[in-house]
Amino acid sequence: MNIVLLDPRQTQSEIWTISAKRQLEHLQTHLDIQVGDTLKVGIREGKRYLTEIVEISETSVQLKPLQEETVPEKLPVTLIVALPRPKVLRRLIMDAVTMGVEKIILLHSYRVDKSYWQTPFLQQLDHYLELGLEQAGDTIAPEIALYKRFKPFVEDVLPGLISTNCPAFVAHPYAEQPMPFALQHPCSIVIGPEGGFIPYEIDLLIKNGCQAVNLGNRILRTETAIPYVLGRLFSAS
Amino acid sequence: MNIVLLDPRQTQSEIWTISAKRQLEHLQTHLDIQVGDTLKVGIREGKRYLTEIVEISETSVQLKPLQEETVPEKLPVTLIVALPRPKVLRRLIMDAVTMGVEKIILLHSYRVDKSYWQTPFLQQLDHYLELGLEQAGDTIAPEIALYKRFKPFVEDVLPGLISTNCPAFVAHPYAEQPMPFALQHPCSIVIGPEGGFIPYEIDLLIKNGCQAVNLGNRILRTETAIPYVLGRLFSAS
Repeated sequence: MNIVLLDPRQTQSEIWTISAKRQLEHLQTHLDIQVGDTLKVGIREGKRYLTEIVEISETSVQLKPLQEETVPEKLPVTLIVALPRPKVLRRLIMDAVTMGVEKIILLHSYRVDKSYWQTPFLQQLDHYLELGLEQAGDTIAPEIALYKRFKPFVEDVLPGLISTNCPAFVAHPYAEQPMPFALQHPCSIVIGPEGGFIPYEIDLLIKNGCQAVNLGNRILRTETAIPYVLGRLFSAS
Repeated sequence: MNIVLLDPRQTQSEIWTISAKRQLEHLQTHLDIQVGDTLKVGIREGKRYLTEIVEISETSVQLKPLQEETVPEKLPVTLIVALPRPKVLRRLIMDAVTMGVEKIILLHSYRVDKSYWQTPFLQQLDHYLELGLEQAGDTIAPEIALYKRFKPFVEDVLPGLISTNCPAFVAHPYAEQPMPFALQHPCSIVIGPEGGFIPYEIDLLIKNGCQAVNLGNRILRTETAIPYVLGRLFSAS
């Protein structure tokens, strides 16, 4: 947690109040805060400020804003990823948000176990977003969309995301073209499930405008491939 | 698990035998193997083969090697990282091995809790290596070294790792120079603990030949920063 994210309603008077239990616990356990200390605070979907702590009680921390700070820019990327195992979902969303992905799409695929769509973790996406924003020092949540059917998404939605200045790449171990790097324009990237997309899915993605690219001959786990690919694609930014 | 890693002693006759419980369980649960199927197998510290399954029993799977396959190349990098929380250690080692890091150094630092050096997970490093190699399809374990004292490492060991053709970079949010990308030569990278290195540590690293570089204005968790940095540094390979 590198900023404390507040709801705009908590910042409407001159003195702002942190009252969420999770945030108070973090401040007390990890930061050993004192009155007079400064604290970085973000207003959800708004600006970011350096603040001063003016009062600490059991149930709240009161703050006075000192000066505005810069909200980090997003990476101009839509991350389209086969819905991972529930255990991996939290980390994947949190990481994607932390790295500044603009839009996240969770997609069904042949090798995604159908039970994954029933996990209660899918009800927690907003919480994972918040953790990712607080880690990054960001205030603006990316959009998250869920598509439970592969074919309608690839045929009807995906082509609308692709243009000359915004290509889409699908990571595929058997592709001949290597994944590009140091892009100077936005793009979409498509990451398959554990075990990969099946040939029918790769063909349908290519038919609908995706470029199949390889990431070398090491097979990375989804949650490792995503930061590796983002570091590579946006290395020049 | 994208290959099954065997000890050289298991591959001395014409027919090879998988008998480790973890590997048998994986094959039975995830791959639904049958006699006649092919299976990718690596010999630890040796070559990699495509094999054919010739017999399956409760306690073993017997294989016949068919043809040699290529072992993926390593990334020419030494990863020097402040010892993370035990929970993160497994994933960090496994990921670094999967991505092909040549040498891993776990280092003490002011913000590393001393108790982390007592974790039983540090006795499991060889197991995490094995998981990382099996994920990547690699057979050659990287070297892992542990340094429980920061200053002697930085003053006595680090300078020996640095040369004109092999610089060392420390990721530091306040550095002006951005992290380079698409390197054509080997390097070392130094990644701090949660909360970062303290100024004294950064100064000592710089004094001993490290270049401080920033990764943009988002603060990534250690385990996210490592693949992000490796994807960036070695994007041209």
